[in-house]
Amino acid sequence: MVNYPKSILSRRSRFVHNPLEEDDRIARQLSMEGKNVLKLNRGDPPYYFPTPKYMVDAYIKALKDGKTGYSENRGIAELREEVSRRYKRLYNVDSSADSSIITQGVSETIGFMNAALIDGGDTAILFRPYYVLYAPELGLYGGKAFVEDYDEGNNWQIDTDSLRKSVGKASMGTRRPKYMMITNPNNPTGTVLSRKVLEEIVEIANENKIFLISDEIYDEITYNKARFSSVSQLARGVPHAILNGASKGYDATGFRLGYIFIPENDRTSNEVRSKMEDFANARLCPNAPAQYAFAEGLRNTKEHNKAIKSMVNQIEQRVNACTDEINKSEYLSTVRPNGAFYILPKINMKKLRIRSDKEFVDRLLREECIHVTRGSGFGAKDHIRIVALAKKQTLIDTIKRINRFCERHKA
Amino acid sequence: MVNYPKSILSRRSRFVHNPLEEDDRIARQLSMEGKNVLKLNRGDPPYYFPTPKYMVDAYIKALKDGKTGYSENRGIAELREEVSRRYKRLYNVDSSADSSIITQGVSETIGFMNAALIDGGDTAILFRPYYVLYAPELGLYGGKAFVEDYDEGNNWQIDTDSLRKSVGKASMGTRRPKYMMITNPNNPTGTVLSRKVLEEIVEIANENKIFLISDEIYDEITYNKARFSSVSQLARGVPHAILNGASKGYDATGFRLGYIFIPENDRTSNEVRSKMEDFANARLCPNAPAQYAFAEGLRNTKEHNKAIKSMVNQIEQRVNACTDEINKSEYLSTVRPNGAFYILPKINMKKLRIRSDKEFVDRLLREECIHVTRGSGFGAKDHIRIVALAKKQTLIDTIKRINRFCERHKA
Repeated sequence: MVNYPKSILSRRSRFVHNPLEEDDRIARQLSMEGKNVLKLNRGDPPYYFPTPKYMVDAYIKALKDGKTGYSENRGIAELREEVSRRYKRLYNVDSSADSSIITQGVSETIGFMNAALIDGGDTAILFRPYYVLYAPELGLYGGKAFVEDYDEGNNWQIDTDSLRKSVGKASMGTRRPKYMMITNPNNPTGTVLSRKVLEEIVEIANENKIFLISDEIYDEITYNKARFSSVSQLARGVPHAILNGASKGYDATGFRLGYIFIPENDRTSNEVRSKMEDFANARLCPNAPAQYAFAEGLRNTKEHNKAIKSMVNQIEQRVNACTDEINKSEYLSTVRPNGAFYILPKINMKKLRIRSDKEFVDRLLREECIHVTRGSGFGAKDHIRIVALAKKQTLIDTIKRINRFCERHKA
Repeated sequence: MVNYPKSILSRRSRFVHNPLEEDDRIARQLSMEGKNVLKLNRGDPPYYFPTPKYMVDAYIKALKDGKTGYSENRGIAELREEVSRRYKRLYNVDSSADSSIITQGVSETIGFMNAALIDGGDTAILFRPYYVLYAPELGLYGGKAFVEDYDEGNNWQIDTDSLRKSVGKASMGTRRPKYMMITNPNNPTGTVLSRKVLEEIVEIANENKIFLISDEIYDEITYNKARFSSVSQLARGVPHAILNGASKGYDATGFRLGYIFIPENDRTSNEVRSKMEDFANARLCPNAPAQYAFAEGLRNTKEHNKAIKSMVNQIEQRVNACTDEINKSEYLSTVRPNGAFYILPKINMKKLRIRSDKEFVDRLLREECIHVTRGSGFGAKDHIRIVALAKKQTLIDTIKRINRFCERHKA
């Protein structure tokens, strides 16, 4: 008699894993036992700052107007037009409604990009620490990461001289890297790259003829006097794609709306944009009524500016208070973020009887009901990622509790 | 000087193409010229039957209650519980809220399934004519379709004797087919498979130890006295997955909510379900407020039964009237559907100066502003697919116009 095979899963599927979610079952279990789990693992602004009412109202209006059928697959025209206007307004970039494709969050975009560009054996340049899903999605399609590093010793900046050398070397082989991907502001370090560094990155991509992808989902969440520049401003004439969406700056993660914006019209940009449309067509449209809400989010700049200013002001205070408390600790230390809302403290492992960041995170969850994420999931071992969206005092108290936890596990 | 490569797209990405959408640009162009394009190319019930108010109200309530952040990645528990209850109610299947994963439409599920099961060189059994996206998604992951045929001469039924032989043969090699996929009721033929045929299919899958996937998105849209059976009823103890969602029977395509339901608890089922959760975790959650609306759609059986009965009654009349009119034509002929809302007439090409179904569809769009889909996109050349959701008289008039179009292009 034949049996079902021991495993029917594809080899590729082993890459599909999200370290952000690996302890979710434990957390749910603890909640069911009546314990109050402090969730500092998900970058979910609406959990702390309600989605602005003017957007929710537009969402409700769309539902009442019967916008519940399929929309155009690449997204409704009025939303794509607002995306184009946003880039003119904020970054003085000329584009049209045809320059963008609306996606089901930036996550979907990352999948589309890898599927569109990566065959088995291809490489892509990623900067470490990176967002957790970049490497698994690359692996799913048989690609390998060519890893460059943010320098923790230098405020998580990028050494562009060394980057120029190694990208040049990587591009000399028969298989040039298919893309270079940056996240600015960065998740998980909260780093905003300087304009000078960005200009160099654009130049390096163009010198080596590598498609540049810039995930700028946190572009309006910068503080501590950081000045954000968009790759779309700096990469005139250079093939590139910008990833962005409603989740963070528009405080609407649950809408699941992202977009890919490809403003240039060179052959490479056109080819990628056109293939992105094919991918959009293959999965039909994103949620239809939510697109009207996001379009209103972008259109009503007065309401948006009010909302984002107030949210970023709060985030700045929370991140700074949490950073200060971390840097008082003998077990943790961190670079001060100036964008997004993540803090990535380094754990002083030598002082602890804990062997890895994974063990640290698991124990912290089970023993203290504090849910953070292991840095190794982002390519930063011996670190933990804290989402600093909770109230200031909660964050300060949490760091104190983490300190006591460390005391208990002192070497 | 180096140039950007002539193409940076992956080889795999050439498969990503949706024949349903290939004439969209022409249709949009015609609309912009002020022409009235009759869209019979998209299976979009809400365009003709407004999404039931009780679901829209639940959607609005979720928005007012602030459900705009991330949900659990595999979907909110109350929706997964309602899915489980639905299968108990309709098909007497025991399961739990953990048996299903909520997806961004069934389209996403098809992507997950292929990514989870297919490596380069793997095969999967598909029945032709198939839904347009099955083959491209398989190709994207390097898989090949092992094609079985619905028999047009026998009311599009499946010859299970011949199926048993060929699946047996296909399964003897070193690489057993990874899955067998059926769509019941079928898109594009509207065929409801008999219980006897389904039982045989389940047996053949189990004899050869091939994972069975049944796309049942039209399971509540059957008529002309057809009796629908779900694979979930018949495949007790046999590893399988059911695909379904809100789009068709719940008349809410724009919500973009599907689910994958894996009720069995054998090793293979558990392995696939667990990997589906990994895929869900990798893309974060589906649209959050829409999930509450779909949960209410499933919970409120009284309202649902009223809505579905009225819609199916209308669909029955429309499909039948259109079928009758088609079968009066000397250029078209078709098998009467008894499920879904598609009709797949065969074109009598010999009588025409048109060389292919693609040319037929393109010309019909440009000359008559009637937008249908080419059968070859579904693996059925010399056919066209008509979405029979428009009003009865519109459909009858359309077929008359198609006849006149054929007259003009008579050989």
